Amino acid sequence: MTTDLDDVVGSIAAELATWAERGEVATYIPQLAHVDPARFGLAVITAAGTTHLAGDADVAFSIQSVSKVFTLTLALGKVGDALWRRVGREPSGNPFNSIVQLEAEKGIPRNPFINAGAIVVTDTLLAGHAPKEAIGEILRFVRHLADDDEIFIDDAVARSETATGHRNVALANYMRAFGNLDHDPALTLGVYFHQCAIAMSCRQLAAAGRYLALDGRHPTAGGRVVSSERARRINALMLTCGHYDGSGDFAFRVGVPAKSGVGGGILAVAPGKASIAVWSPGLNRVGNSLLGSIALEKLVKATGWSIFGP
Amino acid sequence: MTTDLDDVVGSIAAELATWAERGEVATYIPQLAHVDPARFGLAVITAAGTTHLAGDADVAFSIQSVSKVFTLTLALGKVGDALWRRVGREPSGNPFNSIVQLEAEKGIPRNPFINAGAIVVTDTLLAGHAPKEAIGEILRFVRHLADDDEIFIDDAVARSETATGHRNVALANYMRAFGNLDHDPALTLGVYFHQCAIAMSCRQLAAAGRYLALDGRHPTAGGRVVSSERARRINALMLTCGHYDGSGDFAFRVGVPAKSGVGGGILAVAPGKASIAVWSPGLNRVGNSLLGSIALEKLVKATGWSIFGP
Amino acid sequence: MTTDLDDVVGSIAAELATWAERGEVATYIPQLAHVDPARFGLAVITAAGTTHLAGDADVAFSIQSVSKVFTLTLALGKVGDALWRRVGREPSGNPFNSIVQLEAEKGIPRNPFINAGAIVVTDTLLAGHAPKEAIGEILRFVRHLADDDEIFIDDAVARSETATGHRNVALANYMRAFGNLDHDPALTLGVYFHQCAIAMSCRQLAAAGRYLALDGRHPTAGGRVVSSERARRINALMLTCGHYDGSGDFAFRVGVPAKSGVGGGILAVAPGKASIAVWSPGLNRVGNSLLGSIALEKLVKATGWSIFGP
Amino acid sequence: MTTDLDDVVGSIAAELATWAERGEVATYIPQLAHVDPARFGLAVITAAGTTHLAGDADVAFSIQSVSKVFTLTLALGKVGDALWRRVGREPSGNPFNSIVQLEAEKGIPRNPFINAGAIVVTDTLLAGHAPKEAIGEILRFVRHLADDDEIFIDDAVARSETATGHRNVALANYMRAFGNLDHDPALTLGVYFHQCAIAMSCRQLAAAGRYLALDGRHPTAGGRVVSSERARRINALMLTCGHYDGSGDFAFRVGVPAKSGVGGGILAVAPGKASIAVWSPGLNRVGNSLLGSIALEKLVKATGWSIFGP
Repeated sequence: MTTDLDDVVGSIAAELATWAERGEVATYIPQLAHVDPARFGLAVITAAGTTHLAGDADVAFSIQSVSKVFTLTLALGKVGDALWRRVGREPSGNPFNSIVQLEAEKGIPRNPFINAGAIVVTDTLLAGHAPKEAIGEILRFVRHLADDDEIFIDDAVARSETATGHRNVALANYMRAFGNLDHDPALTLGVYFHQCAIAMSCRQLAAAGRYLALDGRHPTAGGRVVSSERARRINALMLTCGHYDGSGDFAFRVGVPAKSGVGGGILAVAPGKASIAVWSPGLNRVGNSLLGSIALEKLVKATGWSIFGP
Repeated sequence: MTTDLDDVVGSIAAELATWAERGEVATYIPQLAHVDPARFGLAVITAAGTTHLAGDADVAFSIQSVSKVFTLTLALGKVGDALWRRVGREPSGNPFNSIVQLEAEKGIPRNPFINAGAIVVTDTLLAGHAPKEAIGEILRFVRHLADDDEIFIDDAVARSETATGHRNVALANYMRAFGNLDHDPALTLGVYFHQCAIAMSCRQLAAAGRYLALDGRHPTAGGRVVSSERARRINALMLTCGHYDGSGDFAFRVGVPAKSGVGGGILAVAPGKASIAVWSPGLNRVGNSLLGSIALEKLVKATGWSIFGP
Repeated sequence: MTTDLDDVVGSIAAELATWAERGEVATYIPQLAHVDPARFGLAVITAAGTTHLAGDADVAFSIQSVSKVFTLTLALGKVGDALWRRVGREPSGNPFNSIVQLEAEKGIPRNPFINAGAIVVTDTLLAGHAPKEAIGEILRFVRHLADDDEIFIDDAVARSETATGHRNVALANYMRAFGNLDHDPALTLGVYFHQCAIAMSCRQLAAAGRYLALDGRHPTAGGRVVSSERARRINALMLTCGHYDGSGDFAFRVGVPAKSGVGGGILAVAPGKASIAVWSPGLNRVGNSLLGSIALEKLVKATGWSIFGP
Repeated sequence: MTTDLDDVVGSIAAELATWAERGEVATYIPQLAHVDPARFGLAVITAAGTTHLAGDADVAFSIQSVSKVFTLTLALGKVGDALWRRVGREPSGNPFNSIVQLEAEKGIPRNPFINAGAIVVTDTLLAGHAPKEAIGEILRFVRHLADDDEIFIDDAVARSETATGHRNVALANYMRAFGNLDHDPALTLGVYFHQCAIAMSCRQLAAAGRYLALDGRHPTAGGRVVSSERARRINALMLTCGHYDGSGDFAFRVGVPAKSGVGGGILAVAPGKASIAVWSPGLNRVGNSLLGSIALEKLVKATGWSIFGP
């Protein structure tokens, strides 16, 4: 299978390299607009531990909303199921930065993977911490998951988001008005913008996601990152909510839990099979990596890793 | 495993028999309001073909929206992926009979498992047919899937829905106004109300759903009901959209594709493992069987059948 | 003033005759699509009773939603303020045929001048009557108001609406589902489509609206059509809700109570001054007569009839 | 008439003094929650210049959103009709602080009297000014209108709003994200919170509103505050949008242009007749002064000042 996977991964990368239609690079964060749309990386790490790379798999990119998977894991470890009093578990039926639902549902975001929900998750990580400490804790956790200390936060991206993130400021203040934010919105957003600015390569991202493919076990450190039940539940949330208002279509076409970011990265999990990271900066109309989604569709088809088949 | 499963199924039924909080029986269709809330049935048919029953597993009930799985399968066989021009594949973020989304999205329902979407699916089955023929075709298809000719339509329920289904009349006419219904709304709804009035026992329903656990293959007739890819895609839709605005929570707590109906039935699929049907007439606040969901959560936990684990 | 008004009315008609941009004739009712967009009529009847005409002021057109003013007046006479338990008095912030608000507000339309609200008003007129009788009563009432027996219902238009009015069927059934329609939706809509199909000339329409300029008094028959208070309240509703989601702009630019119809007619009321009817079939983007609105703006500016000045 | 008006004003105040049901005092701005709900003031200044007072007509209260009338007047004088490219003129069909409409309409508030719209209006007043200067200009303008230098800003209220106005921070940042705010949201909101914190008595407020009853002319300084056309248009906006989602009902029951504030004050205008200010701190369910509305209904009924009658 190892040899086969190298072939599969390589041929997908080769095929997509020639595609003209690559979507639009996100421009609302100025720093992200500079990224070369021709970049493409793919990394697969199997449950057994073999690694299969193609393209720019070792080039770091801004993981953006993929970070929400890691902060959710961290927050559940801290506050447990009490978190679900402050954020829901349903797909939103709305774009990633919609504020409409918050008004109707009184400040409770629909799920932890839309921006409003992720801001609430981050807010819980600030309890008893200064923002700088919370940022440090998140970064250490991601390094621990990937077993890689060469993961950093891109300060220029974090500053760029801080200067232009008016929608996120609106979301945070709106939830604060409903009493669903425990800290000054500026502090919570400071941490949030930094977590989004974590830069990782596909290889690092696939490594960091392995615990979700291994039913919660840490692949190298031994022991568990989370319980089996919690790992499955995070996977379920990734499947139903991981691609904003394109989650249903992604489940339909690809068929594995995954979380996308506007930097063009996607972390995908084939439980018991592999952890996968793909990166292509151009986005489709709902804000997910266009070629990244196609690459995953081809990979899952070739490997039979869909969770919806036997 | 057979013995174990009998134990698991039996002990779940025994435990739930004593539960006081059983939800509310649907009353908006007068015929359904007469059902005894104490009823409970559970049927599991494994991929290998062993059957495990508990409670009222042989008592027929109104499958209601569970029928949408079968008409979707039938319609995809007839019109193929052209269906997706008329109905989406995203969770709705709204109740099962919401009309709001239709206005914003110009008459295209979000998915085939909310009422509006299912009415469009049924509309495609009327092409070239009189309503009576379309009803006959649906019933024959369900009998074929279950390999059981003792499945019938409850005419009293169908009449009851016709007399009180003003919301569905509104949905159908609204889509007709946008050009997304090919037939007179009264004709399409006539077929739709009859498909919802199909009565099946848990044993029959689990039998009928086996092709989805078998990657599209018919369990007894040989050959395929649908391709492997299509079976997986229907499972994906069941997971993301099968429980209306409770789909995310169901995926989180239970973790298998499933479709509920207001009659209190749920068809669940553990790919490669089993087809499962449960029936308890009382509904939770989003319109899904309260005890049915709990029974499935217990069953999946006991068997490890979650699609989100290895 | 009489001579001056003739000049004003004539010069407005002359100026608008040359305008190239005349809006779009409504096409969703096939019969209305045949109307010549070059038509233009204007009729002003002062409180003193002098009549001032220009253009096609004696050509009958389909009054459509302008009829809602007359059925509201009739219904208030029948059921009094009990009507307001079934329909609100607020601008909708939505298009004329929107169904969204009905879901959020449980079947209570926002005001009697959007379609849903007008259907409820008409529903009250059916109490104790066959549809044919209710239609007859409405027509007799309009003839009485205008003191003109040469006002008729255009059956071809009524049939055309019946065949194509799927949105209105949706609205009526939706309200029926909430218990806010007392009769079979098909019967209520039958009456509604006929009231919309009343054909009147500008001269006749201005005559029929005089009671609203005369604080409720019938201009020729003596006595009152409605109390002073009720006349003022109907005028208030016309001002805040008479032009759908363009009501605020119409009040801002023109400044008198008025009700528009998709046939291109507008009835406007300058309390104590005049009743005005204008007709130009082309509509603006919110469904109100484009040139009709401009003609009224010019007329009110020339006469100083704005209700917002001394 | 002077004697009569004193009687009318006095008897209304006397009658309302005994009312038990007085609504709820706004609590979301802590400083406002301290106000005594038993307070009631009423001031009428006729076009001829006679003043008629009752109750606490000389006690200063926080005018809050009534200030939007004055900043709109000031902004129109500065930027003219270009303002309407940034804010609409339609009733919102939503509560005063709703954010939903902003998303659908891309950051353009529906009208200048909901919070979002008023924030945009204030933003235009900051052009070329430091916040302190803009605040000074607003205060000077209000003093000029009322011809009264004893009008002040209540700094404790301004600070209270700054500390708790998360919804307004959300609105401002949301519009900034759409490019419809020219300045740092914190600066614009600083000015906005100060304009809302202007404290005036009923006598002062009625005096400040006289230009709207006088077709734009300044009552004492001579000359015009605004053109006749602009005065009428501001009155039209007050009528259609001055009471948030209760504007239609207020027009129906009372029948004059008016603007309310959550401090319990209402400024009402009877064009050519009088400028009126009323104050009662308790609010109805849509956020307008409960007794203030009733007092105005009684006053307009007694005087015949409705703009919807002859």
